[in-house]
Amino acid sequence: MKQIDGGITAVKGVQAAGIPAGIKKSEQKDLALIYTEKPAIAAGVFTKNSVTAAPVLVSRQHLQKPTAQAIVINSGNANACTGEIGLENALRMTSITGECLGIDKEQVLVSSTGVIGQQLPMEKIEKGIQAAANSLSSEGGGDAAEAIMTTDTYPKSVAIETTIGGKPVKIGGIAKGSGMVAPNMATMLSYLTTNARIDSKSLQSALNTVVDNTYNQLTVDTDRSTNDTVIILATRIAEHSEIVQNKGEDYQAFCNGLQFVCTELVRMLARDGEGATKLVEVVVKHAKNRDDAEKAARAVAESPLVKTAIFANDANWGRIMMAIGKSEAEFDPYKVNVLLGDYLLVQNGMDAGYDEDKATQLFNNDPVQITINLNAGNADITMWTCDYSYDYIRINADYRT
Amino acid sequence: MKQIDGGITAVKGVQAAGIPAGIKKSEQKDLALIYTEKPAIAAGVFTKNSVTAAPVLVSRQHLQKPTAQAIVINSGNANACTGEIGLENALRMTSITGECLGIDKEQVLVSSTGVIGQQLPMEKIEKGIQAAANSLSSEGGGDAAEAIMTTDTYPKSVAIETTIGGKPVKIGGIAKGSGMVAPNMATMLSYLTTNARIDSKSLQSALNTVVDNTYNQLTVDTDRSTNDTVIILATRIAEHSEIVQNKGEDYQAFCNGLQFVCTELVRMLARDGEGATKLVEVVVKHAKNRDDAEKAARAVAESPLVKTAIFANDANWGRIMMAIGKSEAEFDPYKVNVLLGDYLLVQNGMDAGYDEDKATQLFNNDPVQITINLNAGNADITMWTCDYSYDYIRINADYRT
Repeated sequence: MKQIDGGITAVKGVQAAGIPAGIKKSEQKDLALIYTEKPAIAAGVFTKNSVTAAPVLVSRQHLQKPTAQAIVINSGNANACTGEIGLENALRMTSITGECLGIDKEQVLVSSTGVIGQQLPMEKIEKGIQAAANSLSSEGGGDAAEAIMTTDTYPKSVAIETTIGGKPVKIGGIAKGSGMVAPNMATMLSYLTTNARIDSKSLQSALNTVVDNTYNQLTVDTDRSTNDTVIILATRIAEHSEIVQNKGEDYQAFCNGLQFVCTELVRMLARDGEGATKLVEVVVKHAKNRDDAEKAARAVAESPLVKTAIFANDANWGRIMMAIGKSEAEFDPYKVNVLLGDYLLVQNGMDAGYDEDKATQLFNNDPVQITINLNAGNADITMWTCDYSYDYIRINADYRT
Repeated sequence: MKQIDGGITAVKGVQAAGIPAGIKKSEQKDLALIYTEKPAIAAGVFTKNSVTAAPVLVSRQHLQKPTAQAIVINSGNANACTGEIGLENALRMTSITGECLGIDKEQVLVSSTGVIGQQLPMEKIEKGIQAAANSLSSEGGGDAAEAIMTTDTYPKSVAIETTIGGKPVKIGGIAKGSGMVAPNMATMLSYLTTNARIDSKSLQSALNTVVDNTYNQLTVDTDRSTNDTVIILATRIAEHSEIVQNKGEDYQAFCNGLQFVCTELVRMLARDGEGATKLVEVVVKHAKNRDDAEKAARAVAESPLVKTAIFANDANWGRIMMAIGKSEAEFDPYKVNVLLGDYLLVQNGMDAGYDEDKATQLFNNDPVQITINLNAGNADITMWTCDYSYDYIRINADYRT
């Protein structure tokens, strides 16, 4: 497996575009289009927030069919809490896209991200979709990655080449964060492409597994959005024999590739969390079971007191103990070890006699890794987050002004 | 019912002291003592964090007996994650206090608050307890309120006089926050006194009910501490007939008085949340049941995105909809109304056509009140919190430096 250039358009037969449609107040790109030259097998995972944005409802419905050929995405307006008109507008985005590309509107998936509660400026959207359709290109992955950004400070794009059944296979992906990023995918959009030959059921299964190990283990601020979406399109033109029934060596090889791409995107999202100065990996080891591992890791990764201490390069392990204690995971506090990088801070639930200056230095590591050994079982998990800085407040206090 | 001066020492027969024992680096008061001239009926509620501090373990054990006569509290060191030595030190605090006051050590309850993971400086503590015992006074409630503070910016003290069975009854209380304040009582200490004639079972029942409606509905930053404690001492010298079997008109009158005192203390705690510029009351109405009401209110009160918007006087109601959506409470998004004060922002899940300038003005109200009508049932709840400001980060980044 090796990293390659090109993001989602590294995969042959995939075209993309990202253009400024005037939805954002600035002149930044705010409309993206992803297109496969032939219908692709598609799978998706969506927000669990019960206040669900209109485009999510439409994409979920269109994904009842196993194929799709385009995804249209706008930033600057979430089309959430917008009632019947919002739903009509989301549908209209798919029909305009279908007309521009000469495909059925049910082959078009749609996403929106941005401010909640305002109707989309449909005139600008319509012109934007036309402009995006005209600028589709097999080098457009980077533009699309830019056009889906909201408070992200840089575009997130990854691609790899791996081998399945002895044949080369590519997987590409783009993603945007960076506020409202939390369990079960907060305002988090990610689009993945691959040329792997894989059936619909196996593709959905691989996506579910990988999302659960990556995007669902990313938490910036505990808030999850009304719009979260991860979609994968498989062009199926690679030369290996088809991956079926979500099992076997080839299926595993595909999952490994997808896991690599999504882990890289999640790291980029966490590193670019609103106001983040550090990427933080929280590793919980030897929990009683996976559920306990996730509870303990999440309690640490989401604790404002832990996150502000990390911002300050302060090895305040008492806050880590407090956090796992409130998590409701089962463990004996006096069997817990905590490490910063490889350096032992807490042994058997108490100060391991570490050196504060040395610990402070370890906050310069990238990522900052906190490992918590609960010594209660055999379940491990990794979760990604960032620190809490002054800028988190500034960005979110000024968001609509 | 009327508010009176004196805090916990407004109740006859209660003495208190607060002195600087040198536990904190500064020369601030850091050791408090509360003493009743005769043994009082005592009840307590403690942290649910599974990493439980040594003083909590000791106080829980001593409260197996229904009476207590003193509470010793230090700030500056939490005596948590301190193992066997920590447990011995907590026990020793009760025995030193018992010796100084000439009472059995099992009549002494103990609390600590401050940094986790360091052993108590027992020499300073011992001298401090002696000094506090020597300065006990029936005007010492204010000093005790000061001595229990950590990052609090002012002491919290309340007292009322009410009538039970036609006779005057007093209830006083002190409390400290202000970081790690969250569900089920984060580093939150509160001590209450009363002269009400009430039996042990009724006192515990009243305390449980009131704590659930007040301290457990306070959330500053989702973190809950290893040390949370609420203790009430009843001197029982009021002249009404005894309140028994936690029922009846007199029991209800006592609960009402206690509810008033604790609500006032909770408001002070929220207003003094770390970095807070505003006291925020989140009211959820017409939830399907109490559990749903609490989930929805907590999701709003704990959302960093909602709290930063409040800091910025931004009526970003989309974030409120997002927060209730992630709460897992059951409701129809398009039946939800949201008010800021009395002003309708959201009607049937969508923009009510409110005026942004008018909404911005309403953030000057004290408290800022957000009411969410879920129109899903008959359960209501009130939760208290504060906004998130730059200072939250500053205070917590600098905590140990």
